[in-house]
Amino acid sequence: MRIKLTIEYDGTEYAGWQIQPNEITVQQVIETAIFKITGEQVTLTASGRTDAGVHAKGQVAHFDTNANISPDRFKNAINSKLPNDIRILKSEEVDGEFSARYSAKKKTYEYRFYIGEKSPLKERYALNAEYLDIKSMKKCAKKIVGEHDFKCFCSSGSSVKTTVRTVYSIKINRDGDFISVFVTGNGFLYNMVRYIAGTLKAVSDKKISLKEVEEMLFSGVRLNAVTPLSAKGLTLKKVEYDKKQIKNDKK
Amino acid sequence: MRIKLTIEYDGTEYAGWQIQPNEITVQQVIETAIFKITGEQVTLTASGRTDAGVHAKGQVAHFDTNANISPDRFKNAINSKLPNDIRILKSEEVDGEFSARYSAKKKTYEYRFYIGEKSPLKERYALNAEYLDIKSMKKCAKKIVGEHDFKCFCSSGSSVKTTVRTVYSIKINRDGDFISVFVTGNGFLYNMVRYIAGTLKAVSDKKISLKEVEEMLFSGVRLNAVTPLSAKGLTLKKVEYDKKQIKNDKK
Repeated sequence: MRIKLTIEYDGTEYAGWQIQPNEITVQQVIETAIFKITGEQVTLTASGRTDAGVHAKGQVAHFDTNANISPDRFKNAINSKLPNDIRILKSEEVDGEFSARYSAKKKTYEYRFYIGEKSPLKERYALNAEYLDIKSMKKCAKKIVGEHDFKCFCSSGSSVKTTVRTVYSIKINRDGDFISVFVTGNGFLYNMVRYIAGTLKAVSDKKISLKEVEEMLFSGVRLNAVTPLSAKGLTLKKVEYDKKQIKNDKK
Repeated sequence: MRIKLTIEYDGTEYAGWQIQPNEITVQQVIETAIFKITGEQVTLTASGRTDAGVHAKGQVAHFDTNANISPDRFKNAINSKLPNDIRILKSEEVDGEFSARYSAKKKTYEYRFYIGEKSPLKERYALNAEYLDIKSMKKCAKKIVGEHDFKCFCSSGSSVKTTVRTVYSIKINRDGDFISVFVTGNGFLYNMVRYIAGTLKAVSDKKISLKEVEEMLFSGVRLNAVTPLSAKGLTLKKVEYDKKQIKNDKK
């Protein structure tokens, strides 16, 4: 059967999601935990990689197993073998056609800033900014929302067929000293959310104008003032799928 | 001149405040930073030690220096030599009679819980509890507030003259899934706040009754159900002094 996992992790100590030699990754730690329970060497397929240091509140991954464990029991069984910074939030059976990667319809990321002086107790999940001009960030966000060729917001090294993506919404919320940017889209290029956050910040800092943001999206040429912001501020919040591919255990 | 520092730190990676052999401590890291700036080997005196893993939002410490640096400039100078998890929030000149330790009048600690399922992104600064009965915790807090012999809330190994202390207030606030217990007193014994938090939790869990809390405070004999809770939930929030001992640079 195919099992879908919903996963939360603090990415600080990991070299990202995907397995790579000589590095500790989230995928590897969870696959090892599954091996300890089932004796099976499974391969987890995630909705997408997260980079070194990026966090997740709702990463999704699937794997196939012949183990005689009921789908919802995988959650506690795997958790019993995981460190405190990785946690399975949900385990459920899905159709064999379900793919955590290819069936994903929508993803939401949060990029978090905190304003004011640097604070050790705020540093772990947010990027410090002396000041943010939320009003101009919201104006910039409006330019980015929509279907665009986002090649200007993509780090080199990725090999995708097309760099056209649709950003459905960008919401900016303030909660005390924390300012969160929620970006929802049908998919994201390598480093795309960190570039979007960097663009909002560059506009807030008056390093680039709204006109220049439009031009970047049109020309695909990124201005030097736009850099991908630090991984620690980024959290994969949610991955959404069509409901019909998720089996109901209770039937 | 004597300099008073107000300090924030994430205590996770440190073996507490106080210098000890073969361990990295907050005191040692700050003293090393001061040495890099002034060339002086100063000794920092803090309001009190914090244990391994305990955080601070407003720890206070003082040191004496002959360096030709204006008092408020120490802040940025020291910060330039500190790691991200320790930060000087304020530096100011104080009277030679001021002692961060002996002049302290009041201290406030926060003990933070989060309720619901375990969450990697909430684990760092709070202790997970499935459920907390805030109403009975508040009743328990009322029993603890006041002047008492708190020897039942003191780990062995401390050598204090008296175990009588005054707890001025215990406030319990809820913010979403987070429940914070703020304890203000004229001073605290070794592990005292972690025992107070443990007592509130034991009452919430119905492991001990309010009557038994009263009896513990009266007899000084701690019940086994009361344990000091994990360091990670504890933050030293504020240390208060008489204003008159703080010099005004601008005069």
